[in-house]
Amino acid sequence: MDIATVLSLVGGTAIVVAAIAMGGSPKLFFDVPSILIVGGGTLAATFIKFSMKDVLNSVSVAMKTFIVKLDPPEQVIEKMVSLAQVAKKEGLIALEKVQPDNPFMGKALRFLADGYDEKLIQEVLSKDIRLTVQRHSIGQNVFKSMGTSAPAFGMIGTLVGLVQMLSNMSDPKNIGPAMAVALLTTLYGALLANLVFNPMADKLALRSQEEALIKEIILESAIAMSQGTSARVLEEALKIYLAPKAREKVKGEPAAAAAGGKAR
Amino acid sequence: MDIATVLSLVGGTAIVVAAIAMGGSPKLFFDVPSILIVGGGTLAATFIKFSMKDVLNSVSVAMKTFIVKLDPPEQVIEKMVSLAQVAKKEGLIALEKVQPDNPFMGKALRFLADGYDEKLIQEVLSKDIRLTVQRHSIGQNVFKSMGTSAPAFGMIGTLVGLVQMLSNMSDPKNIGPAMAVALLTTLYGALLANLVFNPMADKLALRSQEEALIKEIILESAIAMSQGTSARVLEEALKIYLAPKAREKVKGEPAAAAAGGKAR
Amino acid sequence: MDIATVLSLVGGTAIVVAAIAMGGSPKLFFDVPSILIVGGGTLAATFIKFSMKDVLNSVSVAMKTFIVKLDPPEQVIEKMVSLAQVAKKEGLIALEKVQPDNPFMGKALRFLADGYDEKLIQEVLSKDIRLTVQRHSIGQNVFKSMGTSAPAFGMIGTLVGLVQMLSNMSDPKNIGPAMAVALLTTLYGALLANLVFNPMADKLALRSQEEALIKEIILESAIAMSQGTSARVLEEALKIYLAPKAREKVKGEPAAAAAGGKAR
Amino acid sequence: MDIATVLSLVGGTAIVVAAIAMGGSPKLFFDVPSILIVGGGTLAATFIKFSMKDVLNSVSVAMKTFIVKLDPPEQVIEKMVSLAQVAKKEGLIALEKVQPDNPFMGKALRFLADGYDEKLIQEVLSKDIRLTVQRHSIGQNVFKSMGTSAPAFGMIGTLVGLVQMLSNMSDPKNIGPAMAVALLTTLYGALLANLVFNPMADKLALRSQEEALIKEIILESAIAMSQGTSARVLEEALKIYLAPKAREKVKGEPAAAAAGGKAR
Amino acid sequence: MDIATVLSLVGGTAIVVAAIAMGGSPKLFFDVPSILIVGGGTLAATFIKFSMKDVLNSVSVAMKTFIVKLDPPEQVIEKMVSLAQVAKKEGLIALEKVQPDNPFMGKALRFLADGYDEKLIQEVLSKDIRLTVQRHSIGQNVFKSMGTSAPAFGMIGTLVGLVQMLSNMSDPKNIGPAMAVALLTTLYGALLANLVFNPMADKLALRSQEEALIKEIILESAIAMSQGTSARVLEEALKIYLAPKAREKVKGEPAAAAAGGKAR
Repeated sequence: MDIATVLSLVGGTAIVVAAIAMGGSPKLFFDVPSILIVGGGTLAATFIKFSMKDVLNSVSVAMKTFIVKLDPPEQVIEKMVSLAQVAKKEGLIALEKVQPDNPFMGKALRFLADGYDEKLIQEVLSKDIRLTVQRHSIGQNVFKSMGTSAPAFGMIGTLVGLVQMLSNMSDPKNIGPAMAVALLTTLYGALLANLVFNPMADKLALRSQEEALIKEIILESAIAMSQGTSARVLEEALKIYLAPKAREKVKGEPAAAAAGGKAR
Repeated sequence: MDIATVLSLVGGTAIVVAAIAMGGSPKLFFDVPSILIVGGGTLAATFIKFSMKDVLNSVSVAMKTFIVKLDPPEQVIEKMVSLAQVAKKEGLIALEKVQPDNPFMGKALRFLADGYDEKLIQEVLSKDIRLTVQRHSIGQNVFKSMGTSAPAFGMIGTLVGLVQMLSNMSDPKNIGPAMAVALLTTLYGALLANLVFNPMADKLALRSQEEALIKEIILESAIAMSQGTSARVLEEALKIYLAPKAREKVKGEPAAAAAGGKAR
Repeated sequence: MDIATVLSLVGGTAIVVAAIAMGGSPKLFFDVPSILIVGGGTLAATFIKFSMKDVLNSVSVAMKTFIVKLDPPEQVIEKMVSLAQVAKKEGLIALEKVQPDNPFMGKALRFLADGYDEKLIQEVLSKDIRLTVQRHSIGQNVFKSMGTSAPAFGMIGTLVGLVQMLSNMSDPKNIGPAMAVALLTTLYGALLANLVFNPMADKLALRSQEEALIKEIILESAIAMSQGTSARVLEEALKIYLAPKAREKVKGEPAAAAAGGKAR
Repeated sequence: MDIATVLSLVGGTAIVVAAIAMGGSPKLFFDVPSILIVGGGTLAATFIKFSMKDVLNSVSVAMKTFIVKLDPPEQVIEKMVSLAQVAKKEGLIALEKVQPDNPFMGKALRFLADGYDEKLIQEVLSKDIRLTVQRHSIGQNVFKSMGTSAPAFGMIGTLVGLVQMLSNMSDPKNIGPAMAVALLTTLYGALLANLVFNPMADKLALRSQEEALIKEIILESAIAMSQGTSARVLEEALKIYLAPKAREKVKGEPAAAAAGGKAR
Repeated sequence: MDIATVLSLVGGTAIVVAAIAMGGSPKLFFDVPSILIVGGGTLAATFIKFSMKDVLNSVSVAMKTFIVKLDPPEQVIEKMVSLAQVAKKEGLIALEKVQPDNPFMGKALRFLADGYDEKLIQEVLSKDIRLTVQRHSIGQNVFKSMGTSAPAFGMIGTLVGLVQMLSNMSDPKNIGPAMAVALLTTLYGALLANLVFNPMADKLALRSQEEALIKEIILESAIAMSQGTSARVLEEALKIYLAPKAREKVKGEPAAAAAGGKAR
């Protein structure tokens, strides 16, 4: 779990709330029918678009995104390079005993240990990557869709409030407060969309992209191992996946690092 | 028919309606000319863009989406794996007697029983998938287009109402109610678009994607059968189409499940 | 010409006009300077973007879209299947005497009669399809661009009216009517875009897609004929282009229909 | 230079200006600080996004678009067909003496005269087309970006004006004129975007597409010449690049026209 | 560092500020809670979407974009052409001693000196280009996302201000100033998005595209060297990457320039 991120998030939100509170009583900003219109409308639209299962799924994926931290690519590269050394010394069959946390890596190693050929590994693993990305996109779409519905129902609520206010303007003193309440739904919709739904959708998309990158690294390593590429050459090849600065952080085998310039 | 979805949908909508009713008489929200402008305008725009046939078609497809439930991919995979066992034991010709509900599966099996070669099956079935997706996109576009037209004609109706009100402001008392009525068309347009048309368009797109996935599973199975792949290997390959959690739900042949890790 | 479509279009528009008329004198909605600003501005923007020739062209194509009806794909398939029978019996040279209405079909038949080889037919005809789609996209863009410009100049006209009204508010009685007139340009822009330009652009895009589908059917048939495929097999292959329901409407040769299940 | 286009452009703009003038003194629409905000803001944003060189470049390209007229494709086709006849009779070396205006055509002819092989011509010329399209897209992006910035700074100016007006409402008589001035920036932004920047961006995109089409014609002709295709066959093949109506306008060699139906 | 660009940027911004100051006291435009809402909200949304590392990274990349100037493509071409001459005369091994500033060029030269084969160079370097573009897109997305969040939180702040004002309208004199303050957040959001975040995102995208172009030039040169292409032919081929005007600026070897027309 990324503490720094959570802290900045909480801090940022606190600042917004504090700034609102500076302007007057926060009670003004709480209205039950407004919450029902925005929340109920957004849920109704979401349940037409997606099945119950899709919605629950995407919420649990979103939770996991905040709690489970991905292995940084540097670490995955180190792991794959050390496995390549093992495979070189003891044969691909030695990979059978390795039990990695990452299930995709586990699958790749099992394929190698079982002696699957290069083309089949490429085919099966890249289909896995493609279909996982496609599956993840449904979770993103649930949040994206809620990020579109919430402001729309916010506007609908405000229109409802305006129609009610305008039809009944006998007492001019009520106009101001009635309009304030009418605007609340728009505010709710905008806050939900911009502070919750849209950021979550983007976060899930970014996470899915990062996962795909890590899987690509594993896929490339598996193919290299199956071709018998040396650990040094593999390390050089994998470093391309990292930003220039991060490349130095990879702790390869010392010999490889020294001789890296002449790799081959 | 997905009861849970329908219940959540009805519930969500009821909450919105209740929240509106809490604010005053629902009669305020009913105005015949407003309904005519939004409904008539949206229909007129839709009938310029699409033919009568396209529109009726897309409505009937939308209905079917709510009533007919797709076979879950797990079940399709089980079915195909068991058929692969049959084909292995009794030959491809035995598939002739199978009468599946899914017409695409029926077609694939007929091709196998008739001894079509692998390349031809791939070609014909993937053209079928591609053209079906393209045909379905017209239905989605009908709803998407209505989801764009409805708010536009809502705004047009409000402009009409404002022009009428502003040209005739002799009695200040009428201004409020006249403006309330003018806003109704915008409200109608927003509700139609966000609660009906846009969600339906998204639903159809998602459904079309799910159907394509199931057809892809059938296509891959058909090719595997025509190549004589064993049921165990096919099951391993098809599970990639499922989310990790759903993979366990597939009830394959026990032997396959036990020996799965060593498949080949 | 699609009578049903035209009727629904006229009906829909009539309903909108009637609903407007119910609210007061239609004279209110007519203002010459407003028409000049929206019409003139839209034309000026269109003539910067496109040449005179492109604009005239796209209008004439749009006219044709309403008057000329495309052959339904079912009919094209029947035609191509019957031609395939002719070709099979009397040789490809017999196609020379056929004079189809569709110029693309005529071209394909001439190529077959002249004995062009399969690869060349594929190459020339698919380049024709690609370039036609590209050419048609200019016509769509003319209307799309007018659909963007009209509301923009509507807003510009309203801003002009507001500036004039606000600079000169000596007589409060004039404010209402002046603002009503200012809003007219926005109304004109919205009506033009949503009832004319955008639907026309979408219509042209849909028509272009339908034409491309028919040409694809002809292309596939021509290649099949040049390969000497039998009419029965061709019919099976072409039916994939139709929706499942429409497939039954194709009147193939009776023998083919009966033996269809075993086609090879 | 396309006189008709320029006339329609000037006419359209004149109509808009006249319609504005009908409503009152044009002095109302002139305000120096408003011009500074919209103009300065748009320039500042543009210079962050693009380098000075890119901006100047795109302006000069835009100028050229209005002054230099492209050769119509019909003419390019006639030219290439006549060159193909020359090449056929006198050999490719004879193309060395031809000095066409179009530099891309010149390059293609030089390659042919120098005896470059077909694959190399294809490779070099299509890379040229691709990179030119990419380079032209920068010019379009400069205008597109100004078309986005101008209305944004228009709105910013209006907000600035409103804040100033609202903070200082001691004299109610000033409210109207102050708001009129505040709205001017929005009007400027909308006019600049919709009458100048966006149309220019679209024009450049269309022009770039037309140029690419002409280059494709030249590329295809060059390859055909290098393969020794006859002028008649080449003419048939190139006509596909034209709209059906324009095809008749090409003045090919009479024999070819007569025998066209049997071309091979 | 591009002085001209920075000057125009500063000048443009100064004009906007001056125009605002002409309208009254700039103190009006400064409000702490408004700054907190827009700034805090934008940061909070950004930290949900991206990790702390991504945000810091994108800021440092943005800084570098203004300080470090890219080598113009003309210069890179000259450099590569002169290296090709060296390689031709002294063998690829001579490239080992060259120490270019550009790390990508250094890598390409090392590969050449080490005798990597053509296909491997192509594969590794183009993967490097593709992954760098993908990495850079995260930096662009951080700014794009801030450019979307800032106006959204501006609107949220204005809604908050309006609700507070409308709920408490006892003293009509306060309405104007309260609304002025409410509008400030919208102004802040629009300024931040249109003057800072969106231009920065576009700048980074353009810079990433320019870097990719330079890398493509280096990649093509490396492959040509490994194939033993002559410097003259390479120069001809690389010039296609330049705009026609820039082509003359390349100072190739005089002989090549003279004989360029006959290059082979």
